[in-house]
Amino acid sequence: MGEIFETQEEVPEIKEKLHRVGITNLRTVAKINWKGKLYTFIPTFEITIDVPEEKKGIHMSRLVESITETMSEAVEEEVSRVHSSLEELELAIIKRLEKKHPHKRAEVWIKTHLIIGKETPASKKISLEAYDVEVGVIKDETKGKLEKVLKVTVIGNTACPHAMANNQGKTHIQRAIATLEIQTDFDEEIALEDMVEVVESSFSSPTYTLLKTVDENAVVQKMYQNPKFVEDVAREIIFKAKQRFKGRIHVRVVSLESIHKHDVIAETWY
Amino acid sequence: MGEIFETQEEVPEIKEKLHRVGITNLRTVAKINWKGKLYTFIPTFEITIDVPEEKKGIHMSRLVESITETMSEAVEEEVSRVHSSLEELELAIIKRLEKKHPHKRAEVWIKTHLIIGKETPASKKISLEAYDVEVGVIKDETKGKLEKVLKVTVIGNTACPHAMANNQGKTHIQRAIATLEIQTDFDEEIALEDMVEVVESSFSSPTYTLLKTVDENAVVQKMYQNPKFVEDVAREIIFKAKQRFKGRIHVRVVSLESIHKHDVIAETWY
Amino acid sequence: MGEIFETQEEVPEIKEKLHRVGITNLRTVAKINWKGKLYTFIPTFEITIDVPEEKKGIHMSRLVESITETMSEAVEEEVSRVHSSLEELELAIIKRLEKKHPHKRAEVWIKTHLIIGKETPASKKISLEAYDVEVGVIKDETKGKLEKVLKVTVIGNTACPHAMANNQGKTHIQRAIATLEIQTDFDEEIALEDMVEVVESSFSSPTYTLLKTVDENAVVQKMYQNPKFVEDVAREIIFKAKQRFKGRIHVRVVSLESIHKHDVIAETWY
Amino acid sequence: MGEIFETQEEVPEIKEKLHRVGITNLRTVAKINWKGKLYTFIPTFEITIDVPEEKKGIHMSRLVESITETMSEAVEEEVSRVHSSLEELELAIIKRLEKKHPHKRAEVWIKTHLIIGKETPASKKISLEAYDVEVGVIKDETKGKLEKVLKVTVIGNTACPHAMANNQGKTHIQRAIATLEIQTDFDEEIALEDMVEVVESSFSSPTYTLLKTVDENAVVQKMYQNPKFVEDVAREIIFKAKQRFKGRIHVRVVSLESIHKHDVIAETWY
Repeated sequence: MGEIFETQEEVPEIKEKLHRVGITNLRTVAKINWKGKLYTFIPTFEITIDVPEEKKGIHMSRLVESITETMSEAVEEEVSRVHSSLEELELAIIKRLEKKHPHKRAEVWIKTHLIIGKETPASKKISLEAYDVEVGVIKDETKGKLEKVLKVTVIGNTACPHAMANNQGKTHIQRAIATLEIQTDFDEEIALEDMVEVVESSFSSPTYTLLKTVDENAVVQKMYQNPKFVEDVAREIIFKAKQRFKGRIHVRVVSLESIHKHDVIAETWY
Repeated sequence: MGEIFETQEEVPEIKEKLHRVGITNLRTVAKINWKGKLYTFIPTFEITIDVPEEKKGIHMSRLVESITETMSEAVEEEVSRVHSSLEELELAIIKRLEKKHPHKRAEVWIKTHLIIGKETPASKKISLEAYDVEVGVIKDETKGKLEKVLKVTVIGNTACPHAMANNQGKTHIQRAIATLEIQTDFDEEIALEDMVEVVESSFSSPTYTLLKTVDENAVVQKMYQNPKFVEDVAREIIFKAKQRFKGRIHVRVVSLESIHKHDVIAETWY
Repeated sequence: MGEIFETQEEVPEIKEKLHRVGITNLRTVAKINWKGKLYTFIPTFEITIDVPEEKKGIHMSRLVESITETMSEAVEEEVSRVHSSLEELELAIIKRLEKKHPHKRAEVWIKTHLIIGKETPASKKISLEAYDVEVGVIKDETKGKLEKVLKVTVIGNTACPHAMANNQGKTHIQRAIATLEIQTDFDEEIALEDMVEVVESSFSSPTYTLLKTVDENAVVQKMYQNPKFVEDVAREIIFKAKQRFKGRIHVRVVSLESIHKHDVIAETWY
Repeated sequence: MGEIFETQEEVPEIKEKLHRVGITNLRTVAKINWKGKLYTFIPTFEITIDVPEEKKGIHMSRLVESITETMSEAVEEEVSRVHSSLEELELAIIKRLEKKHPHKRAEVWIKTHLIIGKETPASKKISLEAYDVEVGVIKDETKGKLEKVLKVTVIGNTACPHAMANNQGKTHIQRAIATLEIQTDFDEEIALEDMVEVVESSFSSPTYTLLKTVDENAVVQKMYQNPKFVEDVAREIIFKAKQRFKGRIHVRVVSLESIHKHDVIAETWY
């Protein structure tokens, strides 16, 4: 093995600044210390840095190392102490990356699932519910800012108030899927669980993995007492989110209409 | 340019017969003469042949040529005369392939969308409905057989009879998606439109792209008069399909439950 | 049938403006007159309008009607005359919608495939290539602006210059996928074909559906003569796009690395 | 709350046996004791039973309970002792289901990710690699059989031997994805890790998440020393699988060609 050429350090023919260069769709093991207990999971990572005009490329392997070393056995103690949330974990990756690769902007994104135990409405059993969540940390030295983006996707339902008014209480009902995204300062304390609660309480009814007949009846009754357009769901989510959370808020609700082949959508932001 | 090596014709180190080798996810233009009118569309193709033990590989470009030549301007006349269905088009591709590449087994698969005009239930307007369809032709010389597989996917709905019985006529309703697949002799005449009709009439109600308020009311009333488990939908599809179509039948119904985050499924075959 | 209630016109309990309410994932037939010839295709539509604070909802069926009437037989003449591009078609839908439903903001989005004939590099055959395209028209009365968004996705490849420098000309090569998006004034003339050309010419080599051995050799030689990082591809696309097109430009290149299970990404904007 | 109607127990109008009725796309927490250590993960479940001609439906909540109870705290001890593999966990779910719901046929399917530490070829670092795996247990009382299906999907690469022969050692290289599926008796001992090894060693080279420059060079060299058609990969997998594993074997390899927009495929079975 002779000399190693570092093509990445060369000056490129075309000089254009690149904002986000890195690795995406990387699946690996991660660990966090959540409420005092160590959790292991297998999320999907995206990690990027900027590339200045005069550099041809980045050293991709250093990005991978920043992820894997942050989770390694050697730092098990650090994990237990520090990584108490996805954003803390991501910041630890950025801190490691700062020592490995120069950059002005860095982003780390994690997509995973959150499991929350919910009490069913009548039998009061605990039903474990799964939610898609995504958390990103964005460090931008030129702005002198450390921001984060928190996103939860929740499955609920809509019972149409228009059809209900025109059909003596009968109506069409369907699964609806809502996403709440908040971009805010890194230090802003926002729990993903609270975001899930804001969204889940804004449908005609929440949904449950386990429903005994008495629970199913309670959910059915609740949907009819609480008819909502997809517009109503979006309005309720953004209204509650503005009251509880500081930051830029984006809401997107899609209803998988039971009477159409297409979906209906309501989207708003603040 | 010197000699061209035909690596495909070499004897492979490991001798194993391969049943299906070819091209998949190829998107290109296709034309059929449907009821006297020339239609152009952009389906997704898969085309495969078998490889005997003593050959290393196949000449992939000949498969692509078989598709593109079959659709070319040079054969516009042939198109108008012969390709009156997706399976006729696929057989024309296989006929062309027979002259280009030796094989014992050949398959051509097309995935595309079928648009059918449906009358809405009350306002009697025409609503254009889109269906996912897939058609494959399988030629197997060792069996001396030419077969085809026809598949339609239809979006409808289910209104739960169990919740209805337990909630004084109220119930949960949701979008449901059913697939009917038939494997039969190539010469068996089965129209995709008839398969769509069998599936669409087996839900609590069909769905429509365009619904005025009076139509929406008719669909809502129909769903409540016609409550069905996902099991009922599957049973009705296979029952009707057995009466109308000859061949091996597979039915799969998935209901996107409005009260759960998961789906329910009913599957059967004959 | 008695009175029809228009629940949509009621004042909602929670007053929040919604920016985008409407229909998504609607698949139906569309027609355009492209270079003097009438083309029929089956795209996916999204159409949304804004909802003011004091209205509970929108009349979704009027959005569907705006799409279907614009494409109907009755206006076949209009189609031939006017809809010479996806954005002209979308504007015609918005014009129709203006008479049906009050709004301040309206968007129509179409996703479909573009087929372009390309000459292969050595045998000079015509190979039909398919590209994913998306076009949106955004009318915003409060800004007094009519804008459009044009997006093309092109499949090419990257041959790594770093591995090539360190392995005496050998390197890893892989499929790469690049998206170019331009947001600009409605009247700005930008052809999707020109956007495809900008992207396709920025990879290590373009890709082709049909390649005879001599063409395959030409593509292989070109990839080795033209090694590129995913960063180089992104830089070349944005550099060319800035020279040829007016508007806000976004470039995203993903390389499906052949030596890793994950992808690498380069993204930039202007 | 009055009487509860059990609509599921009624006799359906249409009498047709259904082979697979149940729940799909259910995401929840699962635990296994793997080599003496307790692992928690969040897989996707499908669980189905058959429905005889004379029953209208099944009690879906009993299927959910069979899953959740099997994983509950109350049986933590049982988990530690018994569930040493995905198929053992699935059999425990079926055993629980037998007490809850009569049936002749039952299936439990789990989709999840397997993480295996691999040594990189030159720097000898440990790189954690993720693989998609799916395991199903099928109990069929009419056949008196308990079977399982094991499936692994592995990402590797192919370097084309035909282009290499025609371009003085240069060739096109690309990511390839192979799936090996084995259907066998429940008691047959087959480790998913061994299946991964069979597939991963059959590409031109394995892929790695972490590659330093010296490792990257080793992978590049290996790909050129080991050129393979997608056909060669499929042949090598089935050849090795037949030697190491008992059961019905299915192999499917898809190569994401770097010179085409489409994929090539090789599939075989035994």
